[in-house]
Amino acid sequence: MVKVKIIGATGYGGIGLIELLQQHPEAEITALVAREDVGKRISELFPHLEGFCDLPILDAADERAQAPADIVVFSTPDRVGMYEAGKVLAAGAKVLDFSGDFRFTTAEAYADYATRHGKDPVHAAPELLGKNAYGLAELHREEIKAASVVGNPGCFACSCILGLSPAAKAQLFDPMSVICDCKTGVSGAGKKLAATFHYPARYENMNAYKLAGHQHVCEVERELSLLYGQAVRLTFTAHVLPICRGIMSTLYAQLKAPLTEAEAVALYREFYKDAPFVRVYGSKAPIGTNCVQRTNFCDLVVSVDERVNRLRVVSYIDNLMKGQAGSALQNINLMAGLPETLGLMRSGMYP
Amino acid sequence: MVKVKIIGATGYGGIGLIELLQQHPEAEITALVAREDVGKRISELFPHLEGFCDLPILDAADERAQAPADIVVFSTPDRVGMYEAGKVLAAGAKVLDFSGDFRFTTAEAYADYATRHGKDPVHAAPELLGKNAYGLAELHREEIKAASVVGNPGCFACSCILGLSPAAKAQLFDPMSVICDCKTGVSGAGKKLAATFHYPARYENMNAYKLAGHQHVCEVERELSLLYGQAVRLTFTAHVLPICRGIMSTLYAQLKAPLTEAEAVALYREFYKDAPFVRVYGSKAPIGTNCVQRTNFCDLVVSVDERVNRLRVVSYIDNLMKGQAGSALQNINLMAGLPETLGLMRSGMYP
Amino acid sequence: MVKVKIIGATGYGGIGLIELLQQHPEAEITALVAREDVGKRISELFPHLEGFCDLPILDAADERAQAPADIVVFSTPDRVGMYEAGKVLAAGAKVLDFSGDFRFTTAEAYADYATRHGKDPVHAAPELLGKNAYGLAELHREEIKAASVVGNPGCFACSCILGLSPAAKAQLFDPMSVICDCKTGVSGAGKKLAATFHYPARYENMNAYKLAGHQHVCEVERELSLLYGQAVRLTFTAHVLPICRGIMSTLYAQLKAPLTEAEAVALYREFYKDAPFVRVYGSKAPIGTNCVQRTNFCDLVVSVDERVNRLRVVSYIDNLMKGQAGSALQNINLMAGLPETLGLMRSGMYP
Amino acid sequence: MVKVKIIGATGYGGIGLIELLQQHPEAEITALVAREDVGKRISELFPHLEGFCDLPILDAADERAQAPADIVVFSTPDRVGMYEAGKVLAAGAKVLDFSGDFRFTTAEAYADYATRHGKDPVHAAPELLGKNAYGLAELHREEIKAASVVGNPGCFACSCILGLSPAAKAQLFDPMSVICDCKTGVSGAGKKLAATFHYPARYENMNAYKLAGHQHVCEVERELSLLYGQAVRLTFTAHVLPICRGIMSTLYAQLKAPLTEAEAVALYREFYKDAPFVRVYGSKAPIGTNCVQRTNFCDLVVSVDERVNRLRVVSYIDNLMKGQAGSALQNINLMAGLPETLGLMRSGMYP
Repeated sequence: MVKVKIIGATGYGGIGLIELLQQHPEAEITALVAREDVGKRISELFPHLEGFCDLPILDAADERAQAPADIVVFSTPDRVGMYEAGKVLAAGAKVLDFSGDFRFTTAEAYADYATRHGKDPVHAAPELLGKNAYGLAELHREEIKAASVVGNPGCFACSCILGLSPAAKAQLFDPMSVICDCKTGVSGAGKKLAATFHYPARYENMNAYKLAGHQHVCEVERELSLLYGQAVRLTFTAHVLPICRGIMSTLYAQLKAPLTEAEAVALYREFYKDAPFVRVYGSKAPIGTNCVQRTNFCDLVVSVDERVNRLRVVSYIDNLMKGQAGSALQNINLMAGLPETLGLMRSGMYP
Repeated sequence: MVKVKIIGATGYGGIGLIELLQQHPEAEITALVAREDVGKRISELFPHLEGFCDLPILDAADERAQAPADIVVFSTPDRVGMYEAGKVLAAGAKVLDFSGDFRFTTAEAYADYATRHGKDPVHAAPELLGKNAYGLAELHREEIKAASVVGNPGCFACSCILGLSPAAKAQLFDPMSVICDCKTGVSGAGKKLAATFHYPARYENMNAYKLAGHQHVCEVERELSLLYGQAVRLTFTAHVLPICRGIMSTLYAQLKAPLTEAEAVALYREFYKDAPFVRVYGSKAPIGTNCVQRTNFCDLVVSVDERVNRLRVVSYIDNLMKGQAGSALQNINLMAGLPETLGLMRSGMYP
Repeated sequence: MVKVKIIGATGYGGIGLIELLQQHPEAEITALVAREDVGKRISELFPHLEGFCDLPILDAADERAQAPADIVVFSTPDRVGMYEAGKVLAAGAKVLDFSGDFRFTTAEAYADYATRHGKDPVHAAPELLGKNAYGLAELHREEIKAASVVGNPGCFACSCILGLSPAAKAQLFDPMSVICDCKTGVSGAGKKLAATFHYPARYENMNAYKLAGHQHVCEVERELSLLYGQAVRLTFTAHVLPICRGIMSTLYAQLKAPLTEAEAVALYREFYKDAPFVRVYGSKAPIGTNCVQRTNFCDLVVSVDERVNRLRVVSYIDNLMKGQAGSALQNINLMAGLPETLGLMRSGMYP
Repeated sequence: MVKVKIIGATGYGGIGLIELLQQHPEAEITALVAREDVGKRISELFPHLEGFCDLPILDAADERAQAPADIVVFSTPDRVGMYEAGKVLAAGAKVLDFSGDFRFTTAEAYADYATRHGKDPVHAAPELLGKNAYGLAELHREEIKAASVVGNPGCFACSCILGLSPAAKAQLFDPMSVICDCKTGVSGAGKKLAATFHYPARYENMNAYKLAGHQHVCEVERELSLLYGQAVRLTFTAHVLPICRGIMSTLYAQLKAPLTEAEAVALYREFYKDAPFVRVYGSKAPIGTNCVQRTNFCDLVVSVDERVNRLRVVSYIDNLMKGQAGSALQNINLMAGLPETLGLMRSGMYP
């Protein structure tokens, strides 16, 4: 049994991982750590877990929180995990971090990201950068298996990267022409209260936000550029809509040569032929976020606007699953030498 | 492996059962039958099932639809299963019906129900009545195990009966004083299109309906009267609200003698001590429909208005799970001699 | 022109009143006062008002906030208006308060209310009690015209009182048998952030709350008892649902003698024949909260469960209109000697 | 008083116009015509109109439907108004049509549109084409005043055209680089029942649709090309989201030369300086669809992605108001010689 400790257990990421792990046949939770509600059972706060996970919430300093673990998950904001990762590694465990702390492999790339995000640009554990892996299994499976520190992807980034990777790898498009128009449910913003996510303010209201620049751009440009072999620059727009779970990213890129939808679909299917959680469709399939909700799937609808020779991919994920806890469990499986799909291969429910 | 055939596979009940069965370790689906979309794969219509259940939809007359089954499920409207049940039994299989056809054990009780429901009051298979079981495992576990025909409960009825059974059994209340104020999400009305369930007409709109009388009253009064040992008569109000899944039934009854909340909670917990899917709470627990959504649980919040000596129980279920497909699988497990909780014991997801 | 000053201008009550007043032909806003966002234009915070009301938000101590007014509206929490009302009256203006401060006419009644609400039970301006009017125009029109201090009703209370007043006045029911099962949209809880009203936590989630006792019970029992001429005691349950605006209260009472729906409807229509904002329907009318949304109407659906001789009224209002700002403008009109319906007589929009 | 007759009175467009007209100081409704529910009062079907508009629904052949009118509004599907317009004109009235029938001024342009829309490409009244005006007042005010036949714009088209007109007029962008990423609430699809708009199927579900081509592209390209003086070609993606009202269109175009956000905002404000229903903001303003809901405003948020020199405008409208009935009343006012804003200049309500 793989032993997993979760730091930041009461946020959406932590809860999502608890839900998955308590049904996982080869993993167990050794400790739940959080700053608030210490001493309460997790199921007092989240009664849907009653009878499934009744562990207490521990303070980080609590002796029980020191129980040995194989993997320590930091479901914490930026600039928490980077201060703790060294100690975890020294104790012989691996680190999986949900924030931006370990998504970049150089201090410069981190600084660029942090600056856009309004954070301190100096990484606190630069000696770990370069040894870490970017936790998007579809692109970095072998690195994740080998790494002792993995940075789980951002949710928007995950949807955009999966949606454009095959085309980038094939250098199909003008690398300056990419537009990512992303729509997310409110859970993407996490559990923290905010006036704009107060129920009455959000009901029947949708808007674009962070028009001055979104921090996920860095991950997307980095991954696409790596695949393309040349710098890809994109315009990214984030929109928030009054649903709970789900990201729909509509991705546009100017094709360098004519391409049919059938050719594009075939190329995408070939690229993802070994990816168990990516399903590729043409423009006629009735795909929506409800096809992936509460699952680890990314559904891609690939089409070409032949009038203007433009590729258009609509990428659907559940921001809390493939966009967070699902990818996390996929990474845990890989880091622990287990089958990638263990405990994750299930459909959603309709309606 | 228990072989299950589903008639009416493309309604919400059928889909829900497919989702559960495709993950069940001891059951398999032998055929999916429906009237529409014959010849298509079920996953073409419901792409969330892609890779999980790709069976074709068969016409009832199709040879492949005659494959042997241990249990035939009729996820069909009233007055379909009653015409087919005899043939199923003759072929050596058992019947589980989702409609009102086999919820009553006498022709008179059926006629009363059918009349309220605006249906033909003459049962087409009266010889089976009396041999059938009412498929609410918490009250009729042994009968369900023994029966070859089981009538799955109505969703509202399930929530009301579970919410009042312990008090009825203990004869705590005046049997003429019961009020069931029930609120349901829209999926309770099924997949059939209706002007009142068109998205724009339903968004930010709630209303009471069927004020002249709801057909589920019959089941609730029958079950409570049986437990009480005396006729229970109740006022039932159905309300529909702009959510998808979930029933919240607020149940009121005038107590015959003073009772504290602690006493009421203790009595309920004792009653349900062997029921794996019922959880009982006092009035301070933060229970909502989100605690039971996409699960087979019924969460009961028990309180007493001591100012006027009135019992008040709020009963929460997912109308498509405990109110339909979940109870169905619970019944299938019992009918097949499997553990009651097999394939059903999982938590929901938050948020 | 009637001059109105609003204290607490940036809460839902304040905003709602601004929206109404800026279109009112005989009223004008002289000052907007609030504690936060002082110095900003109201339309910077609420851009839907851009071009309609661009007044600055003033601190209470600002000189411009002392501009003379005919009516000062306190759209403030409990225990704010009671400290300021005396000064307002001394300056020759009238007071309209949205909180519980002036809903009761004796110090004892206030103390009972405040205790249930978890507030200090000692009223700060007891000398004004008895001179104030309860601001439900349908019952207290003449008192409101004459009063210099008016307490706007609670939203739940408004819906329940309007729904039961005709039956109480006619002494139709057992006064100990009343049950008020109330469902509200989230805006009823105001603009204050709370974990339970964070969008993802509330989406597709409904629950009962304050099961130990809701403070609005006092108003409802007081008004019904006054009409009945005998103490009415009731069980009140508040439920919150994932919509923005709307209250649906389902009201039950045991009839003392048989009554048909037609008789009940006739009695209600007679009672409200001079009330321009109350519409009475029988059980077949397709009424929902969408019929009253963004309007000052209360729609009542009256029915009788003849099997058990129980009256059932479903009362629909918009909690922010008839339940707050709409009733407030109705009161302002009466207090200022204007026609009761001025600036209020408009339909909602569908869908 | 301007006399208005509405054909197709019970669809969303018809209802919206009734709501506006019954409060309009200078207009009156002379007849409501529809195919279904003939003989019922409109307020029986839509009880929110009770007391506001209680006119009967008439068959087109009913004598009362022949009452003289100044303007006949066809709130009907494509290919209805074109068969009737000639008779209306012959009787001395003007025509305002909500469908695509009179949005084009040549038979060729109509045929192109109709083909994309899957309709018969032959216009039934080609003699009227060229005499009609495109009913977007912000661009065609004088033509609308003069025309006897006006085609109300498509809702998506309205949002895209208003969002890009100033930049097209100034020839700021590469005319082949335009992308319109449009998100609409469900009411945009009208009142007709459809499986994809059944409440449970749509709740918490969003998707792109009509990826093969949307008929509104024709209007947008035509209007932008006219302003630009050169053919503009664009990629258009329609998405539908689980809200009722609201369109948010995110519009992208590659700038020919560097431009700051401040310059872009200034240019837009200048362009719309005489347009009472367009408000222009920079990227920091907290605009969402809730700022325009239930109003005739179009709010534009203008920004520039300077990293890649791309213009990005987010255009917000209420699809049933500025996108339909609101624009219609604006056109009626112009066609009748009334002030453009009469009966339309009001804010929405928050929240």
